[in-house]
Amino acid sequence: MTFNPPKRLLMGPGPSDVNPRVSLALAKPIIGHLDPAFLQLMDEVQAMLRVLFNTENRLTIPVSGTGSAGMEAIFVNLLEPGDKIIIGVHGVFGTRMVDLAKRCGAEVIEIHAEWGTALNPDDIEKAAIDHPDAKALALVHAETSTGVLQDIEPISQIAKKHDLLLMLDAVTSLAGVPVLLDEWGVDACYSGTQKCLSCPPGLAPVSFSDRAVSVLQSRKTRVQSWYFDMNMVASYWTGGNRAYHHTAPINMNYALHEALCLVLEEGVETRFLRHREMSQRLWTGLSRLGFEPLVDEAVRLPQLNAVTLPESIDEAAIRKRLLTDFNIEIGAGLGPLAGKIWRIGLMGDSCTSAHVDALLAALTECLEA
Amino acid sequence: MTFNPPKRLLMGPGPSDVNPRVSLALAKPIIGHLDPAFLQLMDEVQAMLRVLFNTENRLTIPVSGTGSAGMEAIFVNLLEPGDKIIIGVHGVFGTRMVDLAKRCGAEVIEIHAEWGTALNPDDIEKAAIDHPDAKALALVHAETSTGVLQDIEPISQIAKKHDLLLMLDAVTSLAGVPVLLDEWGVDACYSGTQKCLSCPPGLAPVSFSDRAVSVLQSRKTRVQSWYFDMNMVASYWTGGNRAYHHTAPINMNYALHEALCLVLEEGVETRFLRHREMSQRLWTGLSRLGFEPLVDEAVRLPQLNAVTLPESIDEAAIRKRLLTDFNIEIGAGLGPLAGKIWRIGLMGDSCTSAHVDALLAALTECLEA
Repeated sequence: MTFNPPKRLLMGPGPSDVNPRVSLALAKPIIGHLDPAFLQLMDEVQAMLRVLFNTENRLTIPVSGTGSAGMEAIFVNLLEPGDKIIIGVHGVFGTRMVDLAKRCGAEVIEIHAEWGTALNPDDIEKAAIDHPDAKALALVHAETSTGVLQDIEPISQIAKKHDLLLMLDAVTSLAGVPVLLDEWGVDACYSGTQKCLSCPPGLAPVSFSDRAVSVLQSRKTRVQSWYFDMNMVASYWTGGNRAYHHTAPINMNYALHEALCLVLEEGVETRFLRHREMSQRLWTGLSRLGFEPLVDEAVRLPQLNAVTLPESIDEAAIRKRLLTDFNIEIGAGLGPLAGKIWRIGLMGDSCTSAHVDALLAALTECLEA
Repeated sequence: MTFNPPKRLLMGPGPSDVNPRVSLALAKPIIGHLDPAFLQLMDEVQAMLRVLFNTENRLTIPVSGTGSAGMEAIFVNLLEPGDKIIIGVHGVFGTRMVDLAKRCGAEVIEIHAEWGTALNPDDIEKAAIDHPDAKALALVHAETSTGVLQDIEPISQIAKKHDLLLMLDAVTSLAGVPVLLDEWGVDACYSGTQKCLSCPPGLAPVSFSDRAVSVLQSRKTRVQSWYFDMNMVASYWTGGNRAYHHTAPINMNYALHEALCLVLEEGVETRFLRHREMSQRLWTGLSRLGFEPLVDEAVRLPQLNAVTLPESIDEAAIRKRLLTDFNIEIGAGLGPLAGKIWRIGLMGDSCTSAHVDALLAALTECLEA
């Protein structure tokens, strides 16, 4: 029987609400993955992604999978067995990077920070000094599990000084806060569509610097993944002959194209400001209700707000009631933060005063019950 | 600027035309990947996939990528370094299997047949006898590059006799011809959404037998892919606690759900008959125009028709004219068959008398020019 989903306000860690123009794009007539019209769409998607990533990187494309597929695409292409990589871990996604790097046969040096705080550049510098043979440094720009925004500038200096390939997770940051690949000298970056781009999940925008492409092309071993092998994927997306690799998710690329148009029409600075202002509006209301933020203001993400919960609250019951009675989804805590925080997303189309005010009103009612 | 694709008749090797109900499903409101309503959709998708695959396999789910992601999911989960695998190669997708198995560190025994013919079960039996230590046997059910339908029954007997894990590519066969996983004793199978299911590309239905799940659970090494690690993916799709792994492509799953509903509403037998009848209609017309099939009738796929081309024809020019003047897409030959065949797909919603007749009329006009 035909499935008719309820209409929710998506205010969790992603997916976020989708603009009607993006929904319409999804439903447009399908064409072939080698159709000249699709090849033109691919070129436009790449050009718009370069604007958002602030990069000239030629290899800037959407990988055919969700955000974690982007992580995998970066890691399997740049790491070889025996490589040493320094990874910053201050949440779920840093942990996932460690897992993935080990599956690539890499030796991992983990630099930890308490969940809810930022990584300390001094710790990373120390690791770089202690491990002069390290090849790469990977970390998360916007930790979706904690709501921490990592300042990349000082870390990019360390990567340059110690000649480390810099690999960045920008899943939740892209289109919500500035992502400056070229200025920071990032060599490989991945994101997802379902966060601040407000496009359904299913694609992972990635970007590789020319240096990263050289590393890829001079590998001693084959890339362990066929599906994510950028040598072949790049030849379809950027090569002159558009050699068929795998069938691209056609309609998802229509959606991403439209979502990127919407971001550029709004203007990135306006969009970033909107995210900051709505986060302030949210915290003004949450403070009145007696809630505290998990994360210090200096490193707090506007698009993902972690709320510390008093023990007196039955957090799961309230989340459930928000969903069932008010059609509002917020996120639970993960790992060591399970039961201790909520994660309130204000991403892209979910970042409006109507969303904030509806959530605050609903939450007020739930707390009074 | 908003992208408005042309309306094509998709009669190549996939993607195929999409039913308006599936397009509408794609555009429905997005909900979270842990929303109870989405969990219900996931259950329904799994149940319908089991019907189509003719299996009781508990682990029958769509992988979050296109068809080749399904191939990768099967191979990386079931193969470990040093494993020996026999692979049937009679087209592009058998070749791809060999490539992928080697990336998993497996030793590959290749059994070849000429492109456009079926694999000879005797050759496979001989390989199984010569390599008693082989762990698995993999082959393609419907070779999209040649249009050959492989008879699986005799090969399944060989797999049983020699205790080989049987791995099957059903990308182009599923929903076009019968796929009988349990009857054949197939241990792992993958398909794609953009062929006879007539859903846009972006998901790869897979199914693992209980025996395959045991093999997976008793691996000595970790699965080399994080994204495709079925231990974790299965826990989200089939586990009691629905542990978050990666964000599922929500709207693509809506589309697959609706596409599966359409197949079951039509009835699989009716659908198979439609594919056979339309293929006959196509060949009646092609014969009148003087074209010959590449593949013997006994092993010819109804949904993918390979047409041998006389040297006098400028095949690329005609394909281009079909697309630009008639909005009809057909497929070119791949590999050794490039320039020598066309591949005419009659898959799902692209398998109607209107499609066949429009193509024949357009082709007649192109040939007269």
